[in-house]
Amino acid sequence: MQAKTVTVPTLKRLPIYLTYLKHLQEQGREVVSTTHLSRVLKQDPTQIRKDLAATGLVGKPKVGFDVSKTIEHLENFLGYHNTNDAFLVGVGNLGRAIMGYLPFVEKGLNIVAAFDNNPELIGKEIAGIPVLTVEKLTDLAKRMKIKLGILTVPESVAQDLTDAMVEGGIQVIWNFVPTRLMVPDSVYVEYTQLSSHLAVIKKKLQSIK
Amino acid sequence: MQAKTVTVPTLKRLPIYLTYLKHLQEQGREVVSTTHLSRVLKQDPTQIRKDLAATGLVGKPKVGFDVSKTIEHLENFLGYHNTNDAFLVGVGNLGRAIMGYLPFVEKGLNIVAAFDNNPELIGKEIAGIPVLTVEKLTDLAKRMKIKLGILTVPESVAQDLTDAMVEGGIQVIWNFVPTRLMVPDSVYVEYTQLSSHLAVIKKKLQSIK
Repeated sequence: MQAKTVTVPTLKRLPIYLTYLKHLQEQGREVVSTTHLSRVLKQDPTQIRKDLAATGLVGKPKVGFDVSKTIEHLENFLGYHNTNDAFLVGVGNLGRAIMGYLPFVEKGLNIVAAFDNNPELIGKEIAGIPVLTVEKLTDLAKRMKIKLGILTVPESVAQDLTDAMVEGGIQVIWNFVPTRLMVPDSVYVEYTQLSSHLAVIKKKLQSIK
Repeated sequence: MQAKTVTVPTLKRLPIYLTYLKHLQEQGREVVSTTHLSRVLKQDPTQIRKDLAATGLVGKPKVGFDVSKTIEHLENFLGYHNTNDAFLVGVGNLGRAIMGYLPFVEKGLNIVAAFDNNPELIGKEIAGIPVLTVEKLTDLAKRMKIKLGILTVPESVAQDLTDAMVEGGIQVIWNFVPTRLMVPDSVYVEYTQLSSHLAVIKKKLQSIK
């Protein structure tokens, strides 16, 4: 499949549409209108039409979208049927959760190995994924041509392990550590910063007390 | 502490500054310039000054910010020393990870109870937190005056359990389920949608292959 030019905000909304379409499918619905999607998803209908059009989908006037076909189309577009191999670095609570998180498996994320420096973990398997010493990270990434690394380590070692991933040829890093990573321009970092979400939540709670 | 008017993007950047300042503190640094922060955090220096000023912090000209004082100030501002009680609903892989995630404890998130419908989990403790039946959710939220709920359930039951939380008086929901939630205007939902991040990552991987 070719990578089409879709904006990041559109890309981030597509899985939300997909989840809801699957819900409709389970309920036996065959067709859905943009108006209905707009109401349930609290999203401007024009935006929904634009987002779907960006993936190559156009609804039938006065009818809407065929639920099953739209699901199939979006799953293909998002690459859920293509598996991406990944390394996960840092087998703490969050790392383990990601290793055992079925929705990621269903969406084509295949964690082939995890890395940690804790001798009690090395050699074990968690959720069927072997845990190896971080010393093997760079070489193994090169050898297995791994392009994606998931970073769930303490902040103090985040940059060192980022360097090890980059040296191993990893080009996309999913960073869960609440810190900026220094990487070459050719490497893309996707930030999921739970602490930032928590900061917003705590402010909201202050304002309602 | 009063809730000041700070934008959400600023709020989301503050924990990143804080993590780096703590790193500097561990290295024994006492003062840091905006220029230095700007270079390491890859953030416009004017933005950094504005973000810190929004919390009431102004650096000394030609010197910068006192590291320890800035850490203390930001931790207070973000409410890390004020504990917020929360319920967690959905004790799967992700729910468990959040229950045992030390960085949240350090930042003043106190999960007092978790809820699930799996009889094998009910009555057990995970990371010191009791797991109760979802049937008790609404009443217990009312009784304990819980304002924050964390949602980590399968999509099919997300709306029902949201309704149960709202009925119990919960006013802020941290939603990890890849779906929009329908809530009254008075309830705030913070979305952390890992599937959306994964969608972006998979597109990036397609473009480098």
